[in-house]
Amino acid sequence: MLRQRGCVLWFTGLSGSGKSTLAAALEATLLGEGHAAFVLDGDNVRHGLNSDLGFSPADRTENIRRLGEVAALMADAGLITLTAFISPYRADRDAARAAIGGGRFLEVFVDTPLEVCERRDPKQLYRKARAGEIGEFTGVSAPYEPPVDPAVALDTSVLDLGACIDRLVALLRERGFLPDSASPAGGGAA
Amino acid sequence: MLRQRGCVLWFTGLSGSGKSTLAAALEATLLGEGHAAFVLDGDNVRHGLNSDLGFSPADRTENIRRLGEVAALMADAGLITLTAFISPYRADRDAARAAIGGGRFLEVFVDTPLEVCERRDPKQLYRKARAGEIGEFTGVSAPYEPPVDPAVALDTSVLDLGACIDRLVALLRERGFLPDSASPAGGGAA
Repeated sequence: MLRQRGCVLWFTGLSGSGKSTLAAALEATLLGEGHAAFVLDGDNVRHGLNSDLGFSPADRTENIRRLGEVAALMADAGLITLTAFISPYRADRDAARAAIGGGRFLEVFVDTPLEVCERRDPKQLYRKARAGEIGEFTGVSAPYEPPVDPAVALDTSVLDLGACIDRLVALLRERGFLPDSASPAGGGAA
Repeated sequence: MLRQRGCVLWFTGLSGSGKSTLAAALEATLLGEGHAAFVLDGDNVRHGLNSDLGFSPADRTENIRRLGEVAALMADAGLITLTAFISPYRADRDAARAAIGGGRFLEVFVDTPLEVCERRDPKQLYRKARAGEIGEFTGVSAPYEPPVDPAVALDTSVLDLGACIDRLVALLRERGFLPDSASPAGGGAA
C-alpha cells in the first residue's frame, strides 16, 4: 500500500557525529518521495515515553530497550523508522536488533572521528565534559563500542550530506524496503 | 500524503466488551481503503515494551502512560492509531489525552453491559474472578470508571460489527482525520 516495507535504520555514533542531521534529512527525502518515515530521537522520546529515566547505566539500557520496542511497533505499522541515539553499548544495540528482527534492522554507523565531533561540539557538551562538568560522557569518560558489522558506515567529515543520503536511499532499495528506482510504478517492494 | 491525519482512537471498556474485535475490524477496513492504521493492544505492547510491568495499580498506570506516549508518536507519524486496553481509570485516560493532544484523541467507549461481557467470557476470566482465582478484576472486584464525554459510545450487544465500524469511520470523517467520502480524490483532509 505504502510502496515500502517497514524497517528500522538504527543510527549510532558519538555526540556530534551527525546522527540527527542525517536522520532528519533522510526523513525529509523519503516524505518528499511519498513514503512514510519517522524519526525517533532524544527530543521526542526522552521527554515523553522515557521521561522517567535518567542517565545511570541501568536507565540508559532501559532507554534503548524501550526505543527498540517502539521502533519494532513502528516497523510493524509499515513505517521506515529512523532512530538517532548514541546507543554506545553493543549489547544494547544487539537487544534492539533482536526485538526488531535482524532482517529489518539496519545498523548505520555514523563513524565521524572524535576530533571532528569535538571540534563541532554543537551543544558544548564536549567542552563541559573535558572541564569535568559532565560525568560519563561517551568518547571522553565513557566508552563507545563501535558496530562490528554495520549495514553501512558513514564518516560525515568526508562525505557531504547529499552523498550520505544517497547511500542510505540506495541501501533501502538494495534491501527491498523501497521499490527499485527502475520500476517507478512501485512494483518493486512487496 | 497518506490522505489522512494522524490521530488516536482510544477504545476503553470492560474485558469482553469488544474493544480488540472493533479495533482489528476498523484497522482492516482502513487498510483496505488504502489508509495507514495500526492497533496497539495487550498482545503487542504487554509482551514487548511493557514486559517489565505487572498488574499492580502503579504498574497499570505506567502501562497506560507509556501507551499514551507511544500512541502520540504514532499519531505524529501520521498513523490512525487504535489502542485497545480496558484502561479503567479516568485519570489515566485523561493523562493519555494530555500526552496525545485533545484535538486528536478520540475516546471510544465500548459500553457493552457487564452481564453480556460476562456471558461471553472469551478468556474465562470472569469465571476465574468470580471463583476468587483472579484478584482485582475490573467489573468484578475492581472499578471501571466510564468516560464522561466520549467521542462515541458503542454497545456491541445492540449494534452489530458492521454498524459499529460504520459509526467509527463516520466519526473519523466528521473530525477531518479521513477525507470526506464526497471527495474521493482525497482533497478533504489536510
